[in-house]
Amino acid sequence: MRIAIIGGGGMLGQKLAKALAPRGQLRGKPITHLALADIVDPTAVEAAFPVTTHRLDITDRAAVDGFLAERPDVIYHLAAIVSGQAEAEFDLGMKINLMGSINVFEATRALGTCPILVFTSSIAVYGGEIPDPIEDWTCLNPQTSYGAQKAAAEMLLTDFSRKGFFDGRGLRLPTISIRPGKPNKAASGFMSSIFREPLQGHEAICPVGPDYPHWYLSPRRCVENLVHAAEVQAADLGQNRCFALPGRTHRIGDMVEAMRRVAGDAPVGLIRWEPDPEIQKIVLGWKANFNPRKALRLGFVADESFEDNIRFFLEEDVER
Amino acid sequence: MRIAIIGGGGMLGQKLAKALAPRGQLRGKPITHLALADIVDPTAVEAAFPVTTHRLDITDRAAVDGFLAERPDVIYHLAAIVSGQAEAEFDLGMKINLMGSINVFEATRALGTCPILVFTSSIAVYGGEIPDPIEDWTCLNPQTSYGAQKAAAEMLLTDFSRKGFFDGRGLRLPTISIRPGKPNKAASGFMSSIFREPLQGHEAICPVGPDYPHWYLSPRRCVENLVHAAEVQAADLGQNRCFALPGRTHRIGDMVEAMRRVAGDAPVGLIRWEPDPEIQKIVLGWKANFNPRKALRLGFVADESFEDNIRFFLEEDVER
Repeated sequence: MRIAIIGGGGMLGQKLAKALAPRGQLRGKPITHLALADIVDPTAVEAAFPVTTHRLDITDRAAVDGFLAERPDVIYHLAAIVSGQAEAEFDLGMKINLMGSINVFEATRALGTCPILVFTSSIAVYGGEIPDPIEDWTCLNPQTSYGAQKAAAEMLLTDFSRKGFFDGRGLRLPTISIRPGKPNKAASGFMSSIFREPLQGHEAICPVGPDYPHWYLSPRRCVENLVHAAEVQAADLGQNRCFALPGRTHRIGDMVEAMRRVAGDAPVGLIRWEPDPEIQKIVLGWKANFNPRKALRLGFVADESFEDNIRFFLEEDVER
Repeated sequence: MRIAIIGGGGMLGQKLAKALAPRGQLRGKPITHLALADIVDPTAVEAAFPVTTHRLDITDRAAVDGFLAERPDVIYHLAAIVSGQAEAEFDLGMKINLMGSINVFEATRALGTCPILVFTSSIAVYGGEIPDPIEDWTCLNPQTSYGAQKAAAEMLLTDFSRKGFFDGRGLRLPTISIRPGKPNKAASGFMSSIFREPLQGHEAICPVGPDYPHWYLSPRRCVENLVHAAEVQAADLGQNRCFALPGRTHRIGDMVEAMRRVAGDAPVGLIRWEPDPEIQKIVLGWKANFNPRKALRLGFVADESFEDNIRFFLEEDVER
């Protein structure tokens, strides 16, 4: 079982690689090679099987062909320009999120081996005038360029799969919290930083009020779902290869109280509440209530409570 | 008011041009120029204002820029590879229907004038596991490459509009019946030919049974809707610029009886019923029941009955 992760240097790509290493197998077959590619050289992970790292610009089709030349059995396409940056730099978002994804899809098709292709979409594909809660059949109506580019790629992923070019699985990720590491340019960044920074002794700014509700998944459960996405049987996926992952709806205020229960009063005091109209303009268009029946039926999982999200961060990611 | 029609040589493009000519105005302003472009030189139409014809390959971005250099106020983008051909020639469909549309969108954006852009999508964007009837918020889940390419373009059209790059309006056309002229490669071709050919004294083959239900609009009402699409106020369109046009659901058998009522028994006898599994594989995935509330609210129209569709053909298009 040869596995390739495009976007393998990112937070999820690295955690996925680290989850595959001790696992040693996928779809019941031993992993014989893991190739990590990203726009900058990814960090290698320790494993009993060979792990290679590659610098790859997905806007360069020939480079994508070259990276896939070993004919992986499972390809993860996690590479993207995040929402805030795709909104600010429209052309870059189109180039990476849409055209880059088309390059990955076409290069995968060109292998002629119909490998599994797991693609990370986002709940940012939802928005505008749609009923609440969001069901599996709710229209994609993105209100950000990031969401529109992901949604367009989703349409192609399902079609390429229907044509037998590859066996695609597109996961609409909830907002991942608590993301470790440095802040990125995602408009959703505060949904991690207001916990991550205080839990590490630093101040953080919350640009929305305590009543703001949103849909969350921890990095740990997200990675479990990425692994599961490669294991699901194609026949069970039906006529739409893309669907919302399970998650939990939390209000910011309730999440802060969960942090207080797990980590005491001190971190909560490090949150500064400063409304930011620019960020609100983006995130208030996002949807909070989902009914992800298909994903639940297929065995994908959510966290039990936001206290889990806090604990997982303290176990896996905190830097003291 | 300068108007450009890309796909101006096609059936709808020509009928639209012929409807604009006697109208002489759009959005309350006199038409000063109509430019028709297509992959082969379009036929000019007679009008009191200048009409020019242009050969244009929308896969050539520089050519699209050149065609739009006069900075039209309203651009119709009707050009496409039809469903049967996009299914048989996947790369051509991607190139024209998706990449060609992106060229048109980007070239329109590059004008910097935020013109109105009317785009013809299709009910082929719907399919798979979705509730019946289709509502404005039902997910796009195309089961043809044509539908997937149109759906991907729709996502971009709404986003380019949200960004203020142009003022887009995407109409999901019902199956147009009765199409005049020669058969094309659309899988839906029989939905016109089984009326058009018999009404002109020729045999035609019906590849589905009389109970097959589908969603229809006449060319005349479609063109009225295309004109209306340019006249609707942007503020009334909401956060999704694409929506299903009104139409009527008819079973093939009922349509044949409508032809009998309008044109007598002779044409009905010219239909040969020969089931075709290849065509059925495509068209049985299409949806028949729609609830196009948004389009009706915005003033778009359907036919009164299929007898209208027969009569309009006899008035406008029959060749005796």
